[in-house]
Amino acid sequence: MPATTRATAADSGSSRLRSWWGWGYADAHPSDAECVELGSLLPGTLARPLPVPRVVDLRIGRPAATPPASLAHLVSADPEARAAHAMGKAYRDIIRALRGRPGRIPDLVARPTDDREVADLLDWAGDHAVAVIPFGGGTSVVGGVEYRGDAHRAVLSLDLTAMDRVLELDTVSRAARIQAGALGPVLEAQLRPHGLTLRHFPQSFEFSTLGGWLATRAGGHYATVHTHIDDFVQSLRVVTPAGAGTSWRLPGSGAGPSPDRLFLGSEGALGVITEAWMRLRERPRHKVSASVAFTDFHRALDAVRDIAQSDLAPANCRLLDPGEALLSGASHDGSTVLVLGFESATAPVDARLATALDLTRAHGGRGGSPTADGGASGDAAVSAWRSAFLRMPYLRDGLARMGAVVDTFETAATWDRIPGLIDAVRAEVGAAALKATGRRAIVNCRLTHVYPDGAAPYFTVAVAGRPGREVEVWDEIKAAASDVLHRHHATITHHHAVGRDHRPGYDLQRPEPFALALRAAKTALDPRHVLNPGVLLD
Amino acid sequence: MPATTRATAADSGSSRLRSWWGWGYADAHPSDAECVELGSLLPGTLARPLPVPRVVDLRIGRPAATPPASLAHLVSADPEARAAHAMGKAYRDIIRALRGRPGRIPDLVARPTDDREVADLLDWAGDHAVAVIPFGGGTSVVGGVEYRGDAHRAVLSLDLTAMDRVLELDTVSRAARIQAGALGPVLEAQLRPHGLTLRHFPQSFEFSTLGGWLATRAGGHYATVHTHIDDFVQSLRVVTPAGAGTSWRLPGSGAGPSPDRLFLGSEGALGVITEAWMRLRERPRHKVSASVAFTDFHRALDAVRDIAQSDLAPANCRLLDPGEALLSGASHDGSTVLVLGFESATAPVDARLATALDLTRAHGGRGGSPTADGGASGDAAVSAWRSAFLRMPYLRDGLARMGAVVDTFETAATWDRIPGLIDAVRAEVGAAALKATGRRAIVNCRLTHVYPDGAAPYFTVAVAGRPGREVEVWDEIKAAASDVLHRHHATITHHHAVGRDHRPGYDLQRPEPFALALRAAKTALDPRHVLNPGVLLD
Repeated sequence: MPATTRATAADSGSSRLRSWWGWGYADAHPSDAECVELGSLLPGTLARPLPVPRVVDLRIGRPAATPPASLAHLVSADPEARAAHAMGKAYRDIIRALRGRPGRIPDLVARPTDDREVADLLDWAGDHAVAVIPFGGGTSVVGGVEYRGDAHRAVLSLDLTAMDRVLELDTVSRAARIQAGALGPVLEAQLRPHGLTLRHFPQSFEFSTLGGWLATRAGGHYATVHTHIDDFVQSLRVVTPAGAGTSWRLPGSGAGPSPDRLFLGSEGALGVITEAWMRLRERPRHKVSASVAFTDFHRALDAVRDIAQSDLAPANCRLLDPGEALLSGASHDGSTVLVLGFESATAPVDARLATALDLTRAHGGRGGSPTADGGASGDAAVSAWRSAFLRMPYLRDGLARMGAVVDTFETAATWDRIPGLIDAVRAEVGAAALKATGRRAIVNCRLTHVYPDGAAPYFTVAVAGRPGREVEVWDEIKAAASDVLHRHHATITHHHAVGRDHRPGYDLQRPEPFALALRAAKTALDPRHVLNPGVLLD
Repeated sequence: MPATTRATAADSGSSRLRSWWGWGYADAHPSDAECVELGSLLPGTLARPLPVPRVVDLRIGRPAATPPASLAHLVSADPEARAAHAMGKAYRDIIRALRGRPGRIPDLVARPTDDREVADLLDWAGDHAVAVIPFGGGTSVVGGVEYRGDAHRAVLSLDLTAMDRVLELDTVSRAARIQAGALGPVLEAQLRPHGLTLRHFPQSFEFSTLGGWLATRAGGHYATVHTHIDDFVQSLRVVTPAGAGTSWRLPGSGAGPSPDRLFLGSEGALGVITEAWMRLRERPRHKVSASVAFTDFHRALDAVRDIAQSDLAPANCRLLDPGEALLSGASHDGSTVLVLGFESATAPVDARLATALDLTRAHGGRGGSPTADGGASGDAAVSAWRSAFLRMPYLRDGLARMGAVVDTFETAATWDRIPGLIDAVRAEVGAAALKATGRRAIVNCRLTHVYPDGAAPYFTVAVAGRPGREVEVWDEIKAAASDVLHRHHATITHHHAVGRDHRPGYDLQRPEPFALALRAAKTALDPRHVLNPGVLLD
């Protein structure tokens, strides 16, 4: 039985131009007029948008290292490419580009096409003290793809996106071997003809890669049960300076500590993930969703906890506080809104939704007439939320051009801490923003993922910055946020990774025995310390 | 809101005498007459059972090391205690005890009562080159609690069972802080008054500890989704020779590689797990089960795969091949039997069972009238299976006393390999047993856990041994089994751990970069290499 077949090639790249400094496609950015309109929503922002930054103004110099002839064809010193690989897409990155103070521009951008080339590039980098920053879609919001040190002779951005194919497909076990550089749409397009899907849909889906998801333990489509990409990994292939290896394809195992779990979340510091066998599923045939309104945010939290502690397992269970509901158009009357969605390829899900709605009503939930997905009478709140979700990073960039300080952070904590944590974040982050800017900030909260034992709150902060001091303002606000998370023992990140921005919080949170083990693993696998220096470890 | 309360003490220990050499309670062992009856089922076994071994015959000498006065009250050199801590409970251990050739008897048995005492014992052991074997319930079936080296001056068995309390309970988040030495019934008795349960029920439930489950990534109650103890861990406390640490209580996190996942499955080689916050759940209110018969084992595999790839998530999905069904009394007509069970604390599960039964009928499944659990008309096959399951290890010991070679091994592989793997194991293990004994062996198979992408087959082997050469016979059979698993890329263990017995297979399976990292972590955390030497690593 030829269970495993080579997947056929699929054209799924996009020819639209990516922005070197901002989110996503350059042609999707808000116009100057739209920026002004956005700015009018936030008192104290600029009268006119900051100009779109140009690469030519960065005065990018010659690279400080030259690869040997054998690798030259893989490596580019083109200023446009180097600028586009200098930073991720956090607010901090956007505003630095807008203010003409981007992060360190890498000397070179390499685009290997196979494992051998990755290994050769690592060897060369090790021999010449060149820092290597693995780079997928470049959507890091935590300083994960930016060099900040000075201990290396040069910096090489290792762009994996030329390795973007589904190499094998096992339709019996529903799994595929996929190269790490495949962007979300690129890999889904190759799976679709087989009726299968990875179904990992982070907000960055269009612009981030499988390897990036794995290296950062990205959060995906499912609000419950399998919330992170981790759970969909069957095996990983990793290339390290000390050698390469592949874990066995196994549905489950108890043979020692999981080898894959050490590399999941390793953020390019232990090795380069070059491919993975991923667990797939059929596309859902049954989908239903509904939104429920609450007058009281804390009662809504209780309703969500009841659902999370049931075994109903909604695919979507997103709680929007009044500010967040307003911003996304899900509600205009000050209500808290819960967006519930159920899906299955096996059986109808109406009964599960009905049971969940019963649970919400016991806590004062209103509305919630179920709507089959894609129906003509699609629930307005659900649709509004979805469009706003995908548009949000573009709007953030538009607000940044108006001098606003606007970004998000997310965390997770056990249910016993959740109400106090959310209240404290609102109060303390609001106070920090007021202190830094003299203005009242918007501090909104939603729950993106929920668990029987806790939830993952996601906060949005927006306030007019001090012109020219936006980075400093954000850093002050972010420091206050990290501090309140730490005091409440809420994780420094639920699914955005540690990178460089979260290092202080991460270092406090990480148990010391694990820190010892991780440092030792780093030295064993990357003895010359060239891999993504500064993330996770010094 | 006082969400977190101290759990009250609960008396849940048992005063029944544990067997030092065999499974479980000494008074539950088959009588000599029962042993003879068991032996009659297996041609070629002895006419009379081997005598029950006595500690006094072991001629246990004086310990080769003496702890300082400050630790003396924690440490025993009592021969009975030392004999009971010499080995685990694999067939290999039982027959060695029966034949008067047990493993190395530890010099001392320590019973610390808190973390400080654990740390002090590790310090003393490090200073004096004393090997430390962490010991929970001692039910290892892979040589996990036995010293086999000669590089240490003495051997200390570190028995954690004096640390057996539920220390805190968070009923809001449904989690408890539990000491690692709590046996299954001991911890469940402390949770029961609060209406909560860990619901981890391995075959060894009565005789194994939370710490043992965590250190070995034990498989538990659930046949699907959350199959291993790993998924129920909220945080771990670990004491290592290099220091102690506790991970934060988090429902989910993306902050670097999971610290807990490095210690889950570390088998006492990286540190001593002393307590854990575990995720709990309500006791199920809705339970229903059924058994389905198939004429064709391979068609039954297809049915199970359909169920595993649905989102029906049965709690039990156990497929018994004809031999296994016969042995457990689930069927007497040569049928393959699938035992399905669904449970929920939230909503009725009848519809899920009905859908699953529909899936089985498409593959020739017969019968399967659903039966509510505990009902007077309990499904005979389900009940028969359950009693046989718990009785099995006692019967194994009875057969061992008749000179039989009888043990189990389990694995997991992706669905594309499962049918070929099972056929190959039957053929090759049968051939190895024939070669080693001149007799046809029983080689039965069941699936214990199933996944969308694969399954975990569990094999039982039984054959009359060559008198006095039973260990060698088993080692030959086991080598053949490990070899066929390796050639099929099936894991050396799904939920029995690596220990010392599985090292050859594990070493071949483990990706080399992870091996480098693990060795480095070991040296960082246990620089004097005293912790469980020989498991996972040399």
